Amino acid sequence: MSELVIHGNILSQPVRSVVEFCMLSNIEFTHKDLNLIKGEHLSEEYTRINPFQEMPAIVHDGYNVWESAAIIPYLADAYNVDNQWYPKDIKIRARINAYLHWHHQGVRDILTGYLRRKIVGPKFFGAPELTPENEAPLRAKLNEWYTTFSWLLSETHYVARTQTATVADLFAFNEISSARLLQLDLDAHPTIKAWYEEIAAVPAVQEATAGAMEVVKLLGGL
Amino acid sequence: MSELVIHGNILSQPVRSVVEFCMLSNIEFTHKDLNLIKGEHLSEEYTRINPFQEMPAIVHDGYNVWESAAIIPYLADAYNVDNQWYPKDIKIRARINAYLHWHHQGVRDILTGYLRRKIVGPKFFGAPELTPENEAPLRAKLNEWYTTFSWLLSETHYVARTQTATVADLFAFNEISSARLLQLDLDAHPTIKAWYEEIAAVPAVQEATAGAMEVVKLLGGL
Repeated sequence: MSELVIHGNILSQPVRSVVEFCMLSNIEFTHKDLNLIKGEHLSEEYTRINPFQEMPAIVHDGYNVWESAAIIPYLADAYNVDNQWYPKDIKIRARINAYLHWHHQGVRDILTGYLRRKIVGPKFFGAPELTPENEAPLRAKLNEWYTTFSWLLSETHYVARTQTATVADLFAFNEISSARLLQLDLDAHPTIKAWYEEIAAVPAVQEATAGAMEVVKLLGGL
Repeated sequence: MSELVIHGNILSQPVRSVVEFCMLSNIEFTHKDLNLIKGEHLSEEYTRINPFQEMPAIVHDGYNVWESAAIIPYLADAYNVDNQWYPKDIKIRARINAYLHWHHQGVRDILTGYLRRKIVGPKFFGAPELTPENEAPLRAKLNEWYTTFSWLLSETHYVARTQTATVADLFAFNEISSARLLQLDLDAHPTIKAWYEEIAAVPAVQEATAGAMEVVKLLGGL
């Protein structure tokens, strides 16, 4: 019986993606919470698990792996997963992996980069408020992003251009769900909205996202 | 007999990484050059292969894959590769994949982002020259990068913390070799320099890099 621990706080979008993937793939795990605001990711213990001090990281039978998108293929292979979320078919995997590499700068940087500078930094980490001058280019990038992301969804309705939702959709969804704090205008982008609502209705996503959505609601994002 | 075409110009760092991986894995391929300055990557024909209009993309027996770091596992699985550059061992693959995901913002954005704004844009695409004020934060990030990258190499001498060079080292090397146009000070960073010289001496790397290094030399980077 192998042992898997997922380290990281559920407010972290990539932590939620890994947790959801495990739930959807029937991979048993223990979740070890790390409170970012208390700086628990900077502890000596966690630094031994991930010297980059970012989350998530997993420890699987004593072996540590970090970078959420590297954790997925590792777990898929370790647990012999072959489901819609990360099938063994190398053609489909190629599309998922291509999305996951593009995701860093194509989605996460634009949405979560903005969110950090606008809300998370000033509210929780004592960073200065964004000036309108500094915010303008971030907002402009977000406005372009709606078009790119709608285009991406237009081929098959899923972000990795697959016939079903995959782990790539989970990664994208989790960034967008937190970014609703930026008052995203999904109503004006029906392709994104329809996809978003479909992923939001997946029971494992609802369960893994509930806590984070409470925070988003509390801060006025829903 | 399967057919593989790699599309992209050898001045592109990720194109070189994919070419080198194929050479080192005895994967036969045809190389189809795309001249970026002439805008050949924007053609209708190439847009059908990669709608993102970035390079490289491959067409393997009629199936197109883009994102260099997604091309590697696809080819490794399609050609049953199990060598030091991308072994089948899932623990080693996890480290390589973790590096490749970190690489976008941890290496490529810092080096090639700076290179584009300092040299490639103004010299070849009519972009305005960088002002000292705009250059200062890019230079500051580069200066921090030397420390991070030296630290990364310190565990096993290779970027993915593996016992031998892997495809991760190729990806890193190709960014750094082009970034020498920024007058990188490798002499001041002996850990990076020793690693760089080792990767530069790999015959396939020398062969794939020769043309690009001529350009770097011509523009005063060597």
